[in-house]
Amino acid sequence: MPRMTILTEAELRRIVPLDRDATSCVEDAFLALATRPVAMPPILRLDIPEYRGEVDVKTAYVPGLDGFAIKISPGFFGNPALGLPSVNGLMVLLSSRTGLVEALLLDNGYLTDVRTAAAGAVAAKHLSRPDSAVAAIFGAGVQAALQLEALTLVRPIREARIWARQSERAAATAARLSERLGFPVHAATEGRAAVAGADIVVTTTPADRPILMADWLEPGQHVTAMGSDAEHKNELDPAILSRADLYVADRLTQTRRLGELHHAIAAGTVAADRDFPELGAVIAGQAAGRGSTDAITVCDLTGTGVQDTAIATLARGRALAAGAGTVFDA
Amino acid sequence: MPRMTILTEAELRRIVPLDRDATSCVEDAFLALATRPVAMPPILRLDIPEYRGEVDVKTAYVPGLDGFAIKISPGFFGNPALGLPSVNGLMVLLSSRTGLVEALLLDNGYLTDVRTAAAGAVAAKHLSRPDSAVAAIFGAGVQAALQLEALTLVRPIREARIWARQSERAAATAARLSERLGFPVHAATEGRAAVAGADIVVTTTPADRPILMADWLEPGQHVTAMGSDAEHKNELDPAILSRADLYVADRLTQTRRLGELHHAIAAGTVAADRDFPELGAVIAGQAAGRGSTDAITVCDLTGTGVQDTAIATLARGRALAAGAGTVFDA
Repeated sequence: MPRMTILTEAELRRIVPLDRDATSCVEDAFLALATRPVAMPPILRLDIPEYRGEVDVKTAYVPGLDGFAIKISPGFFGNPALGLPSVNGLMVLLSSRTGLVEALLLDNGYLTDVRTAAAGAVAAKHLSRPDSAVAAIFGAGVQAALQLEALTLVRPIREARIWARQSERAAATAARLSERLGFPVHAATEGRAAVAGADIVVTTTPADRPILMADWLEPGQHVTAMGSDAEHKNELDPAILSRADLYVADRLTQTRRLGELHHAIAAGTVAADRDFPELGAVIAGQAAGRGSTDAITVCDLTGTGVQDTAIATLARGRALAAGAGTVFDA
Repeated sequence: MPRMTILTEAELRRIVPLDRDATSCVEDAFLALATRPVAMPPILRLDIPEYRGEVDVKTAYVPGLDGFAIKISPGFFGNPALGLPSVNGLMVLLSSRTGLVEALLLDNGYLTDVRTAAAGAVAAKHLSRPDSAVAAIFGAGVQAALQLEALTLVRPIREARIWARQSERAAATAARLSERLGFPVHAATEGRAAVAGADIVVTTTPADRPILMADWLEPGQHVTAMGSDAEHKNELDPAILSRADLYVADRLTQTRRLGELHHAIAAGTVAADRDFPELGAVIAGQAAGRGSTDAITVCDLTGTGVQDTAIATLARGRALAAGAGTVFDA
């Protein structure tokens, strides 16, 4: 009779905050992706158009980790009209040795938020200038806040700007973050103004056409685009990819299909078969990172199963240490 | 805070026996596959060769059903040496309208056993002679017993033979089934002898080379091969597929890749692009079933996500009616 631990969102929020351990475990996961025989099959995707629903299932096995996660991420975009969140889901953590279910992480998407923000920190740590102090965030949702907070874990951020299509939301998020993080966070009314003088730009929106333009960029800036995880999503002007000195993918097979790269290829800005480094290779030193203080760098994040396995493993370890969760005999 | 019902294997065994409702819901699922815009993405598969492990994730959305299942099926073949079962897993039932998790079915593979046996009953109901009375079962494991039991739900079975590589296991299973089902079940020492005079032959083994030969078959027999769900598995002599008057797939895209058809194509017995009917089309009357009492019919079952969604939906309904399970706020 398999014995498993069930953890709720509230418990997971308590034991797995966005902190240096979270960014480290995601950094290690990308490193493993470049250096170890990780098994990461293509995403399983189910669409239910009649309810504007979609479900992604991701998994990855990282040699050396005791467990691997299978993550179920539903997004149902009619939910807000029913008073329900669009995005929810859970992770199942299985033993790498026996396949037995060890933990059910009923996180309603919280762990995905953390591991996604952590990837933004990892990208900034390896691609932005070490003295980056000013951040521009596009979007005003959960990831906008988390991505900014994640940057503060790896760079000496002392000012931030928030731009969002809905200016009231941008203002509210800016006010909240300013108080939470202890440095000035302003709402910008124009994207261009948000970018001017910023060291790091992070796009976090579900936009389906570019919101960040190539001619806004300045030498020395780093851009992380994390909003696109589906074919139709697009945040970056395709010209940014040809203008950048360095483009880095979380997983090239995915960004060619789902990321900003996909749109740059479609626009003819980038050749379909052009090779680019992955984040893990930069971390491992197999590929060059930022070449100079003046370089413009871009990181395209579509989300990978290794991040889920990493954060689920961290959650399981923390739960064991804290005696958290409900033990259940199946 | 989503509220879900958690059901254990013991609870599921109590409320979802292999019965006519189980076979009906699986029959309806195959019918839907032929007649409705079912969404059934390819199986997600993860291999962990260092522990002889594999995990399949299956799903399907059937329009008209309130929920859809995502099934996680690990098979770790070093487990028996550790005193653990090779196969286990769970199903997650989500709402078709909102994507919220409605139930966690911690069945350790039990519901898969039921829906797999139910598919055997559905195949026999639509392809075997209505007066089929003698069954030959290849294999002596869980599915051998369940497939025979399933046949009794749809055909007037009054005698059965069990053949298995390990003759002691065949004898033990035969004795147990004879007592349970109330008609004679004998162990056969030769496969050929088991088949002689049988009306229905069901192969339920993990064999990787043929155990049922073409020249053993007699006019009027129906064969269901349900053991193969992976590229390397193979129970039927490839010549059976060319000798049969009718070959039916559960899902043609799968049997071409994973089923007996795959091996017949590889052996050159069947053209790779030859079209065959699916079980749902036969049920719907869109494709012809058995043409005459003398015809030899073959059904190739590799397992489909619609069966999982069907049985999970049945389990959820039974649990609600019985007040079974543990309610959990995530």
